[in-house]
Amino acid sequence: MSDSVKRINHVALVVEDLATALTFWRDALGLPVGHTESNPAEDVDIAFLPVGDSEIELLKPTDPESGIGKYLAKKGQGIHHICLEVTDIEATIQRLTGHGFEMINETPRIRPDGTRYAFVHPKSAFGVLVELYEA
Amino acid sequence: MSDSVKRINHVALVVEDLATALTFWRDALGLPVGHTESNPAEDVDIAFLPVGDSEIELLKPTDPESGIGKYLAKKGQGIHHICLEVTDIEATIQRLTGHGFEMINETPRIRPDGTRYAFVHPKSAFGVLVELYEA
Repeated sequence: MSDSVKRINHVALVVEDLATALTFWRDALGLPVGHTESNPAEDVDIAFLPVGDSEIELLKPTDPESGIGKYLAKKGQGIHHICLEVTDIEATIQRLTGHGFEMINETPRIRPDGTRYAFVHPKSAFGVLVELYEA
Repeated sequence: MSDSVKRINHVALVVEDLATALTFWRDALGLPVGHTESNPAEDVDIAFLPVGDSEIELLKPTDPESGIGKYLAKKGQGIHHICLEVTDIEATIQRLTGHGFEMINETPRIRPDGTRYAFVHPKSAFGVLVELYEA
């Protein structure tokens, strides 16, 4: 186990419609829906489905001009990013940039609930969009 | 928690080169490499990096004509699939097909170590390639 990465906090999937996607993840696979929320700041509706010590996060863009909305239009439905929960987000960012990897957010952004997050640039992380998260 | 899905067993990433990808996942993020293996049956070299109760799995195709090799050529590096560990793979497949979802493998395939797996068709699962796995 890494001393700094605790777990996969969630795997985020972009979907066209939450209710339709839930027929697969909830109804057929039997995952519970932990909660749902609207995030007007990022123009997404979200459903969180806990599984093990992680979550599947379904993201439905509410504005086609938003980042997620444009992603859906360009790439279609699918896996959007992996979020890693870390013990010290500043230290992790420092270690990544020290190794020459490029952040989208060099300083963590803060959500209304006080949790912090930062995205690593997918070109830097070999095609994978990685979110770092500290509770 | 679902009665049938225990956890995200792994998230699989397609990479061009294991050593290069490890500079991010192992050296910069600090994840340990659990083990590595060559899988000639599926034409991939694999590195497994445990994180929480899951793993990041790096897949490097060894044959450009293989399934993973063609995927890499067409889509580039990135997230390939999510593997869900289930308690009863036949029951899960039955539940999925009963809800109208389409499997790539309607009967589980068996690995040399006796574990069983089956893939859900990504068009059926809203663009996500989902592997089911029973230990």
